[in-house]
Amino acid sequence: MIAPPPAALQIAPDGGLQHLITLEGLSKEFLGAFFASADRYKMDGGGRPLAGKLFVNIFFESSTRTRAAFEAAAKQLGADVVNLDQITMSGETKQESLEDTVRTMAAMGAAGIALRHSEAGAAERAAKVAGEFGVALINGGVGCESHPTQGLTDAYTLREIAGEDFSPLSVAIVGDVLHSRVARSNLQILRALGAKDIRLAGPPELCPPDLRKELGAPVFADLDEALDGVDVVMLLRVQRERLRGAFYYAPEKYFADYGLDETRLAKLKKTAVVMHPGPINRGVEISDAVADGAQSLILRQVANGMAVRKAVLTMLCARR
Amino acid sequence: MIAPPPAALQIAPDGGLQHLITLEGLSKEFLGAFFASADRYKMDGGGRPLAGKLFVNIFFESSTRTRAAFEAAAKQLGADVVNLDQITMSGETKQESLEDTVRTMAAMGAAGIALRHSEAGAAERAAKVAGEFGVALINGGVGCESHPTQGLTDAYTLREIAGEDFSPLSVAIVGDVLHSRVARSNLQILRALGAKDIRLAGPPELCPPDLRKELGAPVFADLDEALDGVDVVMLLRVQRERLRGAFYYAPEKYFADYGLDETRLAKLKKTAVVMHPGPINRGVEISDAVADGAQSLILRQVANGMAVRKAVLTMLCARR
Amino acid sequence: MIAPPPAALQIAPDGGLQHLITLEGLSKEFLGAFFASADRYKMDGGGRPLAGKLFVNIFFESSTRTRAAFEAAAKQLGADVVNLDQITMSGETKQESLEDTVRTMAAMGAAGIALRHSEAGAAERAAKVAGEFGVALINGGVGCESHPTQGLTDAYTLREIAGEDFSPLSVAIVGDVLHSRVARSNLQILRALGAKDIRLAGPPELCPPDLRKELGAPVFADLDEALDGVDVVMLLRVQRERLRGAFYYAPEKYFADYGLDETRLAKLKKTAVVMHPGPINRGVEISDAVADGAQSLILRQVANGMAVRKAVLTMLCARR
Repeated sequence: MIAPPPAALQIAPDGGLQHLITLEGLSKEFLGAFFASADRYKMDGGGRPLAGKLFVNIFFESSTRTRAAFEAAAKQLGADVVNLDQITMSGETKQESLEDTVRTMAAMGAAGIALRHSEAGAAERAAKVAGEFGVALINGGVGCESHPTQGLTDAYTLREIAGEDFSPLSVAIVGDVLHSRVARSNLQILRALGAKDIRLAGPPELCPPDLRKELGAPVFADLDEALDGVDVVMLLRVQRERLRGAFYYAPEKYFADYGLDETRLAKLKKTAVVMHPGPINRGVEISDAVADGAQSLILRQVANGMAVRKAVLTMLCARR
Repeated sequence: MIAPPPAALQIAPDGGLQHLITLEGLSKEFLGAFFASADRYKMDGGGRPLAGKLFVNIFFESSTRTRAAFEAAAKQLGADVVNLDQITMSGETKQESLEDTVRTMAAMGAAGIALRHSEAGAAERAAKVAGEFGVALINGGVGCESHPTQGLTDAYTLREIAGEDFSPLSVAIVGDVLHSRVARSNLQILRALGAKDIRLAGPPELCPPDLRKELGAPVFADLDEALDGVDVVMLLRVQRERLRGAFYYAPEKYFADYGLDETRLAKLKKTAVVMHPGPINRGVEISDAVADGAQSLILRQVANGMAVRKAVLTMLCARR
Repeated sequence: MIAPPPAALQIAPDGGLQHLITLEGLSKEFLGAFFASADRYKMDGGGRPLAGKLFVNIFFESSTRTRAAFEAAAKQLGADVVNLDQITMSGETKQESLEDTVRTMAAMGAAGIALRHSEAGAAERAAKVAGEFGVALINGGVGCESHPTQGLTDAYTLREIAGEDFSPLSVAIVGDVLHSRVARSNLQILRALGAKDIRLAGPPELCPPDLRKELGAPVFADLDEALDGVDVVMLLRVQRERLRGAFYYAPEKYFADYGLDETRLAKLKKTAVVMHPGPINRGVEISDAVADGAQSLILRQVANGMAVRKAVLTMLCARR
């Protein structure tokens, strides 16, 4: 099966967004209007525009935080929420296909579905089916390729600090870029908003030089070089499993080489900010003092994630 | 303990239904009135008649689909829903008895409880206890013996297609009849609605000849013979675990012998319909073309399952 | 880190309760007013004072019953509830710290959090963080040290039977006192309400003599001696795992030595009552006849647990 182009698939015939699969192709104008709408949810919560609507979290990968965020946002908007959590995909107890799960929840009357899945292309496959039923599909993190609500959240948070013009910003994305859906979604939205100086840094096993070709951004093996003069440091979560396996990397060594501590932070501009999608590994990617310091936006990202998800949910599900 | 007769246990002193344990003993008149009530939920959702009521799913067996259907239906009716999922019954971490779990949730103020359990008689045992508290017990699939909301859903769906008189219908139930709670509930309701020609088919290990005696319907080892002239094919889910074990049956061989593909479907009447309680095993019980074809009622069953469950929930829980 | 004193931490600057960490330090006057408020929830349910509030259950230990009680109580009060269940703490998939999980849910907008955790001091650590966000932390059972909503429930239930003056009461707490958070919370509240004669009994491995020093109550190895003249028997759940391990104790022997059966019950005052926090092990701590008999308050405890939790939730979360 040839996957349909995600950026086209998510646009309704009237030009509006009908699914949220990817940040690719979203214009600066669209994003500006979207952020203005998220502002309203941040201010007053946004009421109960989804009262009586059914919203379903289909999570094929475990995720406490993102699942809880979608669930809380949808419930606060008045929706009735059903979670299908940690659906097993092992051969032994093979489940129905992703498409059939989506069809089933659509037939039950879902207005919207958030999907977390490990396989590239899963959001497009699900959206194609959901669309046949008039159900909105929201990518809640898929494969290594995209996590659009996190990208929207991070850009929204940065915009609160830096204003609407991202063109003067220097941003470093640090860590396991190779496997990071967050890195890819953030790259797309930072560029859509005008950022030109984006740098990637991390150990060669997790941030290999040929990512420059895939992602079109310079790759640094030396963190201090990458951080020179940046306005924003976006740290990525390192899964401890990755530090074992083929290449061994002690957490202490990772912290020494690629962790952000006070010494490194002190060399940055005083106005530089630190972001992390969470959950954070203290003492691996970040020190306590930096995580809890004045330049950290980490909890603001969490809070803004609620406003952003409420705006997405209402935009996509309210009329279904 | 002698199990009380389920058909009597579920009838209140005033003659109405107070639990839903079995389809046995429900009259054609009762079912007709019930279906008319389900029609109203299908039309407009049915409002929030359970606002402020507590509804509890007690699922001792895992079940994504039925649990989600009860949860979504109850929430859409306004109920507050609590799930007790996949309660372990292993000897090591032995839990309290089924009866004590029911008593506890009743004491917490449940208006209704849906129960899924692997042991025959569990719904009666639970209903007996629930009844002492004025709580409605709804069988959400028990043992191999009964799954009444699925039976109601399937009959309701068939009635939309075939009308109220089931007497001219020929129905084949195909697959793992031996272990199927759906087959038993469907047999009961099809007969209550007047169907006379019901046939069972499947591999002898899963649909042995002596089922004729237990279920009072002819048993066919040859699928094509069983399907000759039928109006309705009800496929049953084959659990892949069953195809291993004592008797080995390759999924491909099962599909060749007992799967419904286009070739077999083409031999049936043009008006014949195909049903399956889901989740479907594509390429085992059914081909893609048949599952997704015009004669398939599979997704209509899912959608109707919501209206039917809403009607059951309101009937049993609204006054508690 | 030095744990802050829990009894001080839970008091707001205005003298009211801002968290519920421990029953230590709660005055008889406070408790009387609290019970009067619980009475109102018992009478009419209490309406929906938490409508639009977000409430989160963070359960690091599995607990069907307490989690369900908090969830049902919060939902019945109108709150939107999100469960974080059985969060793993294994080294392999190390999660973020307890404090970071609390910060995250606070940043998402939680008005209140119920916490179950295996480690002593966890409720104080969580409350300290939650307090920085103006979020109420409710101890849902921590380590062996405290389970305050169970203590409130048990005292509230006893007060319905015995009246407000606990000074004439003789109470025996029986079973695995060593590991019991319920025993400790009940000791605190019984004393705060004036009870003077409290006795502990159980096998020496689970109720060792030196508990007298820790808990300030006489310890009996002989149950019949302990029960002599008591008004209240509080049975504790014995985890079957504990009966294996270093000291072996057959369930039958436990029942013979420390179980409450009709013979033992018959020797007590006719007005004596039997309590158990559940889930009960029939035939281990208690016989069927006693559990289901007229002197058992077990299900009343469950029902009262709803009113008590509703009163706690409203008191702590309604203004956030």
